Amino acid sequence: MEQEAAAPAASQPVDVEAAVLAIGDRARVASRAVGRANRASKDRALRAIGAALKENEARILAANERDLEAGRENGTSKALLDRLALTPARIDGLVSALENLAGLPDPVGNVVRGQTLPNGLRMRQVNVPMGVVAAIYEARPNVTVDIAGLALKSGNAVILRGGSAAANTNRELVAVLRDTLVEVGLPADAVQTVDDYGRAGAEVLMKARGRVDVLIPRGGRDLIQNVVLNSTVPVIETGEGNVHIFVDESADEAMAVEILLNAKTQRPSVCNTVETLLVHSKSTVLPALAHALAERGVRLHVDGRSMDALPAGVEAVAATDVDWATEYMDLDLAVATVDSIDEALEHIRRWSTGHTEAIITNDLRNAERFIAEIDSAAVIVNASTRFTDGGELGLGAEVGISTQKLHARGPMGLTELTTTKWIVQGEGQVRA
Amino acid sequence: MEQEAAAPAASQPVDVEAAVLAIGDRARVASRAVGRANRASKDRALRAIGAALKENEARILAANERDLEAGRENGTSKALLDRLALTPARIDGLVSALENLAGLPDPVGNVVRGQTLPNGLRMRQVNVPMGVVAAIYEARPNVTVDIAGLALKSGNAVILRGGSAAANTNRELVAVLRDTLVEVGLPADAVQTVDDYGRAGAEVLMKARGRVDVLIPRGGRDLIQNVVLNSTVPVIETGEGNVHIFVDESADEAMAVEILLNAKTQRPSVCNTVETLLVHSKSTVLPALAHALAERGVRLHVDGRSMDALPAGVEAVAATDVDWATEYMDLDLAVATVDSIDEALEHIRRWSTGHTEAIITNDLRNAERFIAEIDSAAVIVNASTRFTDGGELGLGAEVGISTQKLHARGPMGLTELTTTKWIVQGEGQVRA
Repeated sequence: MEQEAAAPAASQPVDVEAAVLAIGDRARVASRAVGRANRASKDRALRAIGAALKENEARILAANERDLEAGRENGTSKALLDRLALTPARIDGLVSALENLAGLPDPVGNVVRGQTLPNGLRMRQVNVPMGVVAAIYEARPNVTVDIAGLALKSGNAVILRGGSAAANTNRELVAVLRDTLVEVGLPADAVQTVDDYGRAGAEVLMKARGRVDVLIPRGGRDLIQNVVLNSTVPVIETGEGNVHIFVDESADEAMAVEILLNAKTQRPSVCNTVETLLVHSKSTVLPALAHALAERGVRLHVDGRSMDALPAGVEAVAATDVDWATEYMDLDLAVATVDSIDEALEHIRRWSTGHTEAIITNDLRNAERFIAEIDSAAVIVNASTRFTDGGELGLGAEVGISTQKLHARGPMGLTELTTTKWIVQGEGQVRA
Repeated sequence: MEQEAAAPAASQPVDVEAAVLAIGDRARVASRAVGRANRASKDRALRAIGAALKENEARILAANERDLEAGRENGTSKALLDRLALTPARIDGLVSALENLAGLPDPVGNVVRGQTLPNGLRMRQVNVPMGVVAAIYEARPNVTVDIAGLALKSGNAVILRGGSAAANTNRELVAVLRDTLVEVGLPADAVQTVDDYGRAGAEVLMKARGRVDVLIPRGGRDLIQNVVLNSTVPVIETGEGNVHIFVDESADEAMAVEILLNAKTQRPSVCNTVETLLVHSKSTVLPALAHALAERGVRLHVDGRSMDALPAGVEAVAATDVDWATEYMDLDLAVATVDSIDEALEHIRRWSTGHTEAIITNDLRNAERFIAEIDSAAVIVNASTRFTDGGELGLGAEVGISTQKLHARGPMGLTELTTTKWIVQGEGQVRA
């Protein structure tokens, strides 16, 4: 009898690969229904999900409290616990993001281009859903709702893999999402998670070519690099911003101070915040700039020439190459003095992550050279780098900020979650 | 003395990784000059390359003859030798393709969208070159000139890896390309090859993330799968077309015959040729269709019901699942009888590679269902599948036909060799 009992257990381990691939197959089937749903029906679903999140708030917050408690017991840092935490106000924020999404135009069905060919064929290229979108992210439960909403609005099924520290919260959120889809007549499998299969599940997801049409990693550098280097499914790389501002000789000094304060201190923890200031050696703005930044609590990491230009009472540490490479995401700023726009361009080429760079100048030729020669997703003249943001640039919703060149670059809107289809209609045309 | 002679040889093996990465770095530097070159200067370069190919024809053909001779000695198949061979007429073809490219609009600088934001910021999203494009392809020397021309026109530097069987030809072609670039004032390193480093060089190229912005494999299934599965740089997958035509109950029979003959026999070796015919069981066209195809030398691989419907004198073999999966690229056609459009859609979903599918019908609802429900790069109603082609669809030049959903789907033109840059201009705006 013992043998008989042991045999099934030994011969039936959880086959993670089969389980995750089956999730992919169910997502494909569900994607057909979501992909054909019209805008009215998708918007109804988004609003119903918002209402259901409020209705189930107590249950969601209780699950979140269990995750938080486990996090506190494991000695999770305060910053990570803050990102993990949901509150009634944060759930309200998710609901209003869903409302906002429901108010946006549907990217599906948009005609990219079209014409009638000489032989009478009518040809058009139309945005259609990708099909199955997957997301791998950290223990931030808001991403669960956010990505599911974006995928749904763009007509895609989604497979989620959230950080294990948010497992209880995500389980409740996904249950609410799936139940609501069924209530509004859409398939539950349009939102699925592989969280039950842990890291092994994530690994199968990264290799599920043909089942997953695009994979979006959201999180810190290590998570994104791991996904980029280990996936065989197409990935959109988002993220890192080692952002530069070059203050040219001709810059308006008051403008330079105002832009730097905004770009560094308005929200230092995000990717479009400035990390390195390059100042032209003939500009006289550095003392005032350093003073204003120091007053706002910014710690300066400066090269030798900039150190010499600092006013009395402003402290700074000597910068090394580490500073030029660092995305601080905090109240720290690297500062270098350069003798020309060429030197500024050279510094940026060497250290930039290709996210956003700005120039402050009144010199037309330098503005144009900066625009032409900087190879970054966003190039800004005389404005804060904080504007590299889907909402600010009028995209409505932001899926992320792509730092790759393929498919999407810079702030990504709903359209970047679609692909295109060529539709050709004739009356018997053949090729000569 | 022997020891001294041996020591340098042992300590200086060819460091393939360092050599290929250095090629990448030189390509990046060269990409800046090509990326900023205006259309007139790029078109001048394309025409000069054409002229230089004709001037150096004897030298190129001599090198090609050495490759052909080696191929014949190695027992290379006649088909492969034909793809490897250059002739004066084929060089003329390359020259006129370059002329055609010079006549096309420049994709660089095209404004994708733009607006003035409420705060007065002027924002626009503009096509810019990718930077460094790489191509891995088989022993077809025409691809060397083709891809180099496309890369140049779209403002990119290119790194080539051609099949080793064409090494002599490619060496001459690359030398002509590089010399001509220098003559017209562009950097030679805008066109480089890693052919000297063999398979190891190709492997470094596939992992050269950050140095190569996009990698395009061109060739057979094995080459493409190898590149797709082993690259960490972004890849555009091109190619495989297991193309279907569904002849609906309401199809015009003469139209069905004409389209099938064109789609199967006009050029059977290319990816947009039809491979499987699905016929509605209530259509009466199959006997005429089978007869016409057989007359043109098409070998039919048919399911049981289709076999029963064949007219006397038309031979066919029984189809198995292998036939539904096969891209014959030859005068072979799989044929299945289906009872409904649903059954046709189901067959296509199961076996299609997502390249091109067509329906022949007079039923509006079925045409619309086919367009909406088929998840392929191109969906065609009442016309030949041979129209899935960049030239036919008015793209001017064709980089390839993408069967992936990210970045490019279906016929890819010059624009697909560009990315975008967001340009934001203000007068001191900061974020509130």
